Amino acid sequence: MYNDIIAALEQAAKDDSVITVFTGAGDFYCSGNDLSNFTKIPEGGVDEMAKQGGTCSGDHQLTEYVKAYIDFPKPLVAVVNGPAVGISVTVLGLFDLVYATDRATFHTPFSQLGQSAEGCSSYTFPKIMGNAKASEMLLFNKKLTAAQACELGLVSEVFPDSSFQSEVWSRLKAYAKLPPNSLALSKQLIRSMEKDRQGQTLRQDSASTNQHPSDHQSARGEFKVSRCFSRGQM
Amino acid sequence: MYNDIIAALEQAAKDDSVITVFTGAGDFYCSGNDLSNFTKIPEGGVDEMAKQGGTCSGDHQLTEYVKAYIDFPKPLVAVVNGPAVGISVTVLGLFDLVYATDRATFHTPFSQLGQSAEGCSSYTFPKIMGNAKASEMLLFNKKLTAAQACELGLVSEVFPDSSFQSEVWSRLKAYAKLPPNSLALSKQLIRSMEKDRQGQTLRQDSASTNQHPSDHQSARGEFKVSRCFSRGQM
Amino acid sequence: MYNDIIAALEQAAKDDSVITVFTGAGDFYCSGNDLSNFTKIPEGGVDEMAKQGGTCSGDHQLTEYVKAYIDFPKPLVAVVNGPAVGISVTVLGLFDLVYATDRATFHTPFSQLGQSAEGCSSYTFPKIMGNAKASEMLLFNKKLTAAQACELGLVSEVFPDSSFQSEVWSRLKAYAKLPPNSLALSKQLIRSMEKDRQGQTLRQDSASTNQHPSDHQSARGEFKVSRCFSRGQM
Repeated sequence: MYNDIIAALEQAAKDDSVITVFTGAGDFYCSGNDLSNFTKIPEGGVDEMAKQGGTCSGDHQLTEYVKAYIDFPKPLVAVVNGPAVGISVTVLGLFDLVYATDRATFHTPFSQLGQSAEGCSSYTFPKIMGNAKASEMLLFNKKLTAAQACELGLVSEVFPDSSFQSEVWSRLKAYAKLPPNSLALSKQLIRSMEKDRQGQTLRQDSASTNQHPSDHQSARGEFKVSRCFSRGQM
Repeated sequence: MYNDIIAALEQAAKDDSVITVFTGAGDFYCSGNDLSNFTKIPEGGVDEMAKQGGTCSGDHQLTEYVKAYIDFPKPLVAVVNGPAVGISVTVLGLFDLVYATDRATFHTPFSQLGQSAEGCSSYTFPKIMGNAKASEMLLFNKKLTAAQACELGLVSEVFPDSSFQSEVWSRLKAYAKLPPNSLALSKQLIRSMEKDRQGQTLRQDSASTNQHPSDHQSARGEFKVSRCFSRGQM
Repeated sequence: MYNDIIAALEQAAKDDSVITVFTGAGDFYCSGNDLSNFTKIPEGGVDEMAKQGGTCSGDHQLTEYVKAYIDFPKPLVAVVNGPAVGISVTVLGLFDLVYATDRATFHTPFSQLGQSAEGCSSYTFPKIMGNAKASEMLLFNKKLTAAQACELGLVSEVFPDSSFQSEVWSRLKAYAKLPPNSLALSKQLIRSMEKDRQGQTLRQDSASTNQHPSDHQSARGEFKVSRCFSRGQM
């Protein structure tokens, strides 16, 4: 799954698409396929649990995966069509726009699982919302509603679920008609100042032994990467 | 216009005024005098358009202009008396206080014009409001109301238009009675940590070819720089 | 007082407690014991006033005090049980969670006293809330309500005063059952990126001559440091 997304991002970076969109294909944005398994602490305790998590995805692969977001040169949009859990939430700070249905929730239950936050969230979340709010999510497992996530700046805008898909996609089609070079240049200006710190965060995340398992799969629905072209096709 | 403001800031830095105030003198804070011309893309395309924009103000002048804000040693206040467009909005992140009438709007339609954000906004806006909100403004041309800008932290406080001038100026007169050295020192402590990054942002903005044209003029009203002295005169 | 808190933090860092909690023991969180004395400007003016302030606590002691917060390796929680003034407010940006009763207020009247903000607030406050809001507090002495502080991200959550103690402590007892290593690791990941800048801010604060006096005492109530252990005792 990680490698599929890395490949999709690499392709989108090169072609003539204008913006790139992530969404879930079912009721969930990304429900995490095996998180519940981890609430049973194995005999070896927390360390053993973390190791088991580590077997799902090597540290190196996770690092490459997050790096693919950091380095992506065009506007990156998350269309959060339902509940989001784990790394699908932590990488949101690397997106340029985050649209959410009012049915969406945002949950990063890492410490509960004996793990630590990844996806550069230890850098992006405090930057976006301040430490007093970021700790509630990253240390103390607070699950946010879409409205709360929007108030804290993690989400750009919330839409009623009934009109979510039509409103969001018509807006994205309009955005894809903006001058592509100008969009990419603006994004790169914004992100260039952060790349060093994000790279540094990534190395620290990677050095920490409690890596998060591969939960970036939509258990009840497939995760999709779409590209918006200026001429309207997706 | 740029040079006039640079000169006014240099003078205010040296005299015994306590705080320095920017405001528009008509219905608009800064409407941008020629932005509409740029929506007609010339034959040479976006690059040519950017070059034409470049003829209005050299890159060097724009850099010096933004630097004058970054280096200003005393509290800098924006009194946003109406709609604000372009660089008058992007430099707001370099102000210490931003007071707005509820009639004010905040608009940075750069990508729409084949240009990219300047005024250090690629650094200050994500810092103030997070990327998911900053991109709406800087990449996707979202126009904010005064209330929205206040919620995101770009504006300190919003006032009803009917009492805007009297409320704001009586408050500023009171602030000008605070110990001037303490105010300046506090501002410099706050800003010193950011100067390196703002200088770096400025060099990147300047290196980007799509420089923004000179729109820092109040088309329907003159732009004013006032100084508040501790003894009450402006 | 400073040394007592430093010692308490050093002990809590080493023992097997999971999270560490600050609270005031009376009606106030920290009222500042002698701030009112400083509103009378002495004959020598602001400089003299600052010097007098300096006699209450050496610069070195203040630096060590703030450093104790920066370096603290476990989750640090402020239970703000009433009005908070001065350095008890400015260090809040170094806490991981801030819970406040709706009776709490947050006030940093430094410039009014011819002094400048400390406790790393010149770095943490702009990061949390943006400069346009931080200046209102740090330069222009705005006193925040609990709700305002929560909206700006300085406070994690506000509780009705009638149920404040019971709600907060039952929540903290539950948090203390989370895997301690995971909590500490997550906190350290979050904070490690900031330590350099906070250390730099601390040196600048210390170099500034207008140091803040020792007001970290609860005039009408004692300041308490509690530790929460995973087995429930406090």
